[in-house]
Amino acid sequence: MLEALKKEVCEANLALVRHGLVILTWGNVSAIDRQSGLVVIKPSGVSYDNMSAEDMVVVDLEGNVVEGSLRPSSDTPTHLEIYKSFEGVGAVVHTHSTYATAWSQACRSIPNLGTTHSDTFHHAIPCTGEMTKEQIERAYEKETGVVIAESFRTINPMHTPAVLVAHHGPFAWGESAKKAVENAVILEEVARMASITLALNPTVEMNEDLVEKHYNRKHGANAYYGQIKK
Amino acid sequence: MLEALKKEVCEANLALVRHGLVILTWGNVSAIDRQSGLVVIKPSGVSYDNMSAEDMVVVDLEGNVVEGSLRPSSDTPTHLEIYKSFEGVGAVVHTHSTYATAWSQACRSIPNLGTTHSDTFHHAIPCTGEMTKEQIERAYEKETGVVIAESFRTINPMHTPAVLVAHHGPFAWGESAKKAVENAVILEEVARMASITLALNPTVEMNEDLVEKHYNRKHGANAYYGQIKK
Amino acid sequence: MLEALKKEVCEANLALVRHGLVILTWGNVSAIDRQSGLVVIKPSGVSYDNMSAEDMVVVDLEGNVVEGSLRPSSDTPTHLEIYKSFEGVGAVVHTHSTYATAWSQACRSIPNLGTTHSDTFHHAIPCTGEMTKEQIERAYEKETGVVIAESFRTINPMHTPAVLVAHHGPFAWGESAKKAVENAVILEEVARMASITLALNPTVEMNEDLVEKHYNRKHGANAYYGQIKK
Amino acid sequence: MLEALKKEVCEANLALVRHGLVILTWGNVSAIDRQSGLVVIKPSGVSYDNMSAEDMVVVDLEGNVVEGSLRPSSDTPTHLEIYKSFEGVGAVVHTHSTYATAWSQACRSIPNLGTTHSDTFHHAIPCTGEMTKEQIERAYEKETGVVIAESFRTINPMHTPAVLVAHHGPFAWGESAKKAVENAVILEEVARMASITLALNPTVEMNEDLVEKHYNRKHGANAYYGQIKK
Repeated sequence: MLEALKKEVCEANLALVRHGLVILTWGNVSAIDRQSGLVVIKPSGVSYDNMSAEDMVVVDLEGNVVEGSLRPSSDTPTHLEIYKSFEGVGAVVHTHSTYATAWSQACRSIPNLGTTHSDTFHHAIPCTGEMTKEQIERAYEKETGVVIAESFRTINPMHTPAVLVAHHGPFAWGESAKKAVENAVILEEVARMASITLALNPTVEMNEDLVEKHYNRKHGANAYYGQIKK
Repeated sequence: MLEALKKEVCEANLALVRHGLVILTWGNVSAIDRQSGLVVIKPSGVSYDNMSAEDMVVVDLEGNVVEGSLRPSSDTPTHLEIYKSFEGVGAVVHTHSTYATAWSQACRSIPNLGTTHSDTFHHAIPCTGEMTKEQIERAYEKETGVVIAESFRTINPMHTPAVLVAHHGPFAWGESAKKAVENAVILEEVARMASITLALNPTVEMNEDLVEKHYNRKHGANAYYGQIKK
Repeated sequence: MLEALKKEVCEANLALVRHGLVILTWGNVSAIDRQSGLVVIKPSGVSYDNMSAEDMVVVDLEGNVVEGSLRPSSDTPTHLEIYKSFEGVGAVVHTHSTYATAWSQACRSIPNLGTTHSDTFHHAIPCTGEMTKEQIERAYEKETGVVIAESFRTINPMHTPAVLVAHHGPFAWGESAKKAVENAVILEEVARMASITLALNPTVEMNEDLVEKHYNRKHGANAYYGQIKK
Repeated sequence: MLEALKKEVCEANLALVRHGLVILTWGNVSAIDRQSGLVVIKPSGVSYDNMSAEDMVVVDLEGNVVEGSLRPSSDTPTHLEIYKSFEGVGAVVHTHSTYATAWSQACRSIPNLGTTHSDTFHHAIPCTGEMTKEQIERAYEKETGVVIAESFRTINPMHTPAVLVAHHGPFAWGESAKKAVENAVILEEVARMASITLALNPTVEMNEDLVEKHYNRKHGANAYYGQIKK
């Protein structure tokens, strides 16, 4: 069942380690098959050393395990909420990568400070609001997805494909598992550059025309970056 | 004698290098066999390059060498004091890992600033008080263990399994050598994240409900993180 | 056509990855054959994993593709403008290396703060001025080259072979592709050192006699660094 | 001639790269044979990739090349001045390692902020005074050695075996090439820790009794760190 997707998700989880975004068993990737509404996700707390595609767990959008002998990641309800809220999302990545987590812990959105940011993220990467005591105690992981969705009321999640959960850490997403991992890599680099930038110039402001130019030359109607897709 | 434990301790010492926590011959790991009250520890000032399980030294809780041709780590009396003070501890790790050492040198406890911290450490990681001239001159390494124990008068050392010795560096512990090394790895990452977080927002405060949620979902009575242990 | 130069340019692009200056498909290197006026450049958005010399694209100084089945880097017009403005340049490197990009985002020139800087860059590495809305919308990549050239009105580009494009990132150059990559490596290290230096002493000023001594012992008429070129 | 020493010096130069202290051709190591008064040193500006023991250059204490077909490091006169001024020195290392260079550029001595520092360096690592225009123009590299020696008028150079040359970078030394490299490694780590420490607590002061304890347990008359030398 969904063998190709399981392989992609497993490979994407291992890519997180290779890119230096996770240590120990931290971090998880999932991907959705939109036709069947089934989600493939990493098992909870399992070592990356001997993880294989067969270990991936298949759940439905309500979180019921459809296939797999291991428990799915404890963050599964957050992933599901993202799939339900953001239609275009094909895969979700959660890490505790150092700089993106530090921004999350600082409860600050990452401002768009340069073309590196603009090439991938149209706007500031938003930091969610605080969760209430009720949200935390009731259905914590699902409610984490709820505050994520609320952060994108006025932002297109496919144009700024990442979020910082306050006090916690980043989630990133994309059309495919590979793209979601790539966005998580860029998020970490952008977070690192932004912290160094603000130490050098705390009041610098980005040129908005440059934002539009860079975002659109890669993602706009007349994009001209990369090779032409045939 | 204690061959399995020697192998574990040797492997844990080598893991410190692999995780980037120690350079040169810095750092040491020990583990205790609670039944016999014997402790296996790394020899002093020996290179990691050709260290083997047979080089590990066995001492009793008074510090007498019971087996081994090399001298035990000069920090042995600190390890022993931790075993005597904290019942649940099965292994102790000492490193001079960069960020945890910087916090120790700054004489500041590491505040709990996020869920990465809360997942492993329930409270702030305490920095010990100053040692008196008498403590330093009399039995320095043993007294280091004494000030460590004093830092946990109101904190459960198994729920916050690490400490910063003022002006010196970190000690971490756990039920096993593997777990103690893992806690030392997490401590260093948490120390690094905390220093970046405070540079971005010097007055941020953690949400206490999130601390309880994260600590308890991994370590509480109804923990649901990871796979079910059978 | 220009097989040797294609090989050099391909190798230089791969060297960027090896030196940790680029991630994913970021960054590009070109080199010019001054006799024919033809430029060899990396294709746009292609993975480094399976890039070979044959993938390099040959363009003329007006940007027309003369050879190659792939599209040239979208930054090609910037490279061309640099070749047209700075006679001695044999190769150009563009990266988003972390610290040099952070200085670019901070819109600050990197001051000459030490002999490491002086050994390669005679003056501060200039940050360009802002581009106008018209420049950005009209012919963005070409105009990027124009603001770069303007930054060197009073500086010799062969004595300070790098620039920071405001809000964007660094370009470096040299007589050959190998030298341009080396300058990009040194730029990143100099940028990193400068940010740490200013955190330790925000008002430090360089000794101008040392600048002259170090620059000239490597590049002056009586240079005595390195082996004698025969 | 001095084959064993050449091998040691070559190996020590390569160790600088392995420890991440130098990039490109930066950095150099020398060692002295005190009986003959001859010094073995790295050639100037030669790549580390294919450096072998035979490439090492032998000079006398006046800087005359006694053996070797390559030119000695341009920093040779500084090394020689150190050998002439500090009797116990058997080897000298010069690097532009990132944090030690940043402290040099900031013109600040590295204060002793912890036991990691005290284990190897008894006092603050001094930053030299400014060189005069005359010193820089007359015999720059020799005069660099002169200002180094002046920084140790009241400090024992064998107890604090490193220095920061203002606006330039660090020199470290030791009884052997291996020990000098080790001291350069520790210097860089101590410099890094100190910069993080001061960001966390700008006014922290070290406990002087701890300095004496740590320095003496490794280097004092009753040292008890490491294995007993037989």
